[in-house]
Amino acid sequence: MNTNPDKSVTVLGLGPMGRALAGAFLDAGVPTTVWNRTTGKDRELVERGATSAPTAEEAVAASGLTVVCVVNYDASDAILRGDAVTAALEGRTVVSLTADTPDRARDTARWAADHGIRYLDGAIMTPTTTIGTADAVLIYSGPAGLYQEHQPVLGALGGTHTHLGEEIGRAAAYDIALLDIFWTAMAGYAHALAVARAEGVTARELAPFATGIAAILPPIFEEGAVEMDTGTFPGDGNPITSAVSSMAHIVHTSEAHGIDAGVMRAVEGMTRRAVGLGHGTDGFLRVAEVLGRR
Amino acid sequence: MNTNPDKSVTVLGLGPMGRALAGAFLDAGVPTTVWNRTTGKDRELVERGATSAPTAEEAVAASGLTVVCVVNYDASDAILRGDAVTAALEGRTVVSLTADTPDRARDTARWAADHGIRYLDGAIMTPTTTIGTADAVLIYSGPAGLYQEHQPVLGALGGTHTHLGEEIGRAAAYDIALLDIFWTAMAGYAHALAVARAEGVTARELAPFATGIAAILPPIFEEGAVEMDTGTFPGDGNPITSAVSSMAHIVHTSEAHGIDAGVMRAVEGMTRRAVGLGHGTDGFLRVAEVLGRR
Repeated sequence: MNTNPDKSVTVLGLGPMGRALAGAFLDAGVPTTVWNRTTGKDRELVERGATSAPTAEEAVAASGLTVVCVVNYDASDAILRGDAVTAALEGRTVVSLTADTPDRARDTARWAADHGIRYLDGAIMTPTTTIGTADAVLIYSGPAGLYQEHQPVLGALGGTHTHLGEEIGRAAAYDIALLDIFWTAMAGYAHALAVARAEGVTARELAPFATGIAAILPPIFEEGAVEMDTGTFPGDGNPITSAVSSMAHIVHTSEAHGIDAGVMRAVEGMTRRAVGLGHGTDGFLRVAEVLGRR
Repeated sequence: MNTNPDKSVTVLGLGPMGRALAGAFLDAGVPTTVWNRTTGKDRELVERGATSAPTAEEAVAASGLTVVCVVNYDASDAILRGDAVTAALEGRTVVSLTADTPDRARDTARWAADHGIRYLDGAIMTPTTTIGTADAVLIYSGPAGLYQEHQPVLGALGGTHTHLGEEIGRAAAYDIALLDIFWTAMAGYAHALAVARAEGVTARELAPFATGIAAILPPIFEEGAVEMDTGTFPGDGNPITSAVSSMAHIVHTSEAHGIDAGVMRAVEGMTRRAVGLGHGTDGFLRVAEVLGRR
């Protein structure tokens, strides 16, 4: 095992999130080297004490631990898989906080193993403004020992860090599932704001009630998780057929105002499919089981 | 003005919600008459002191205030617009807690005015289990004086009651917008559970993080409401293009497991449309403004 007493860190990628990560490391007193594909993004970080590396290979050579946060794995591969960078990474650790799919994390694990590079995948579940604060939420997957070794430095990013398991795709799988919830919910909010406006209701009038809807989701999500894992979807008091009726009203009201209802049409279609398969009296989350059938 | 000292109430429709409403009136000591299209739903309520009416016209004649809660306005119209019931309702008040579209509420207001019937529209924003408790949320629209007159009896349903304005469609408009948020978010959760399962992540493993996502929505909704009303959608740190990238990852991961991604495809399409119209650097809720353009 590569014991690594070096508590410095390199951050590759200085978009808003990469700058937040580097800033949190600097605030925690971790010697930090930074690099970005395009220049000029590191000025404020250098003023705060960061070392600016002229090339990616020099950047990764400066620390035992490199944190990569770029737009996706295409961008990440373009940096890491260049010959000079790959060679410089041998025996060192890469923690990818770049968001992409579980498949890309698995592919990267194979590449890392082929080149003697130690690799953890991770995902950041909270906005840039939470980094370095108690509100940050980060998840990781990959070798447990590697996570434990770097946790003290990664802990400088603040908040809650969770190692989800050794299977390298796990952090990305959680990330995808959670982004699925987030962006679908946001699409619902965007559509609701458009329909409300067409009905003469301002966003600020709707907001207190909209936040009330968001507030009832956590217990519904928790109860639904038990239903999903046990495969029982009791519809007492709120069967799928009743949800379908609401969905049809939403589509009708939206389209009567000339507002595209494509998202709700897809939701309604997926829900009617569960009804058509004989689950009309079940609870709505039967839809999840139906979606996942092989 | 019809001053109505009669504090009794009639409940038409004894599905799970209608039974909860009638039960809350009974618990508050309000003399309650009940009726349902099919028989046998009133037994427990009668044991608790309700009067069972043999016909809808006798039911509405028993009280100055009739609360209707059935599956939709087709069902509601089939009851209320029969000649005998319409005649019996003259000079009395109907509060519809039946969910449907703003157009149907407006149509019902015209019918009510034509027949000397006083009409308030309302919507129940919380599950049956909240009725009669502090957690109930009900909204109303229609004549303010009529709302004030019946508020003492309606207050027996518990929780928070809000009169949204005189325009009769307003409660249904809020209801549609809020159901839009709720059911779209639930569809996102259902899809996320299916993708997580395909990745070997159980629903109960995902749940603590899923509830964390729900918990970040209220402040995002509030901030987004200001953006929507002011027409400024700053994308600092989280532009629409970044959202599109996440959406594509979700579609890819879902479909690689053979899981239908129709909802997220629709979300991605609506979002890419905003990018195509030149708003890629804006914040996501620009999508709401684009959706609503005439």
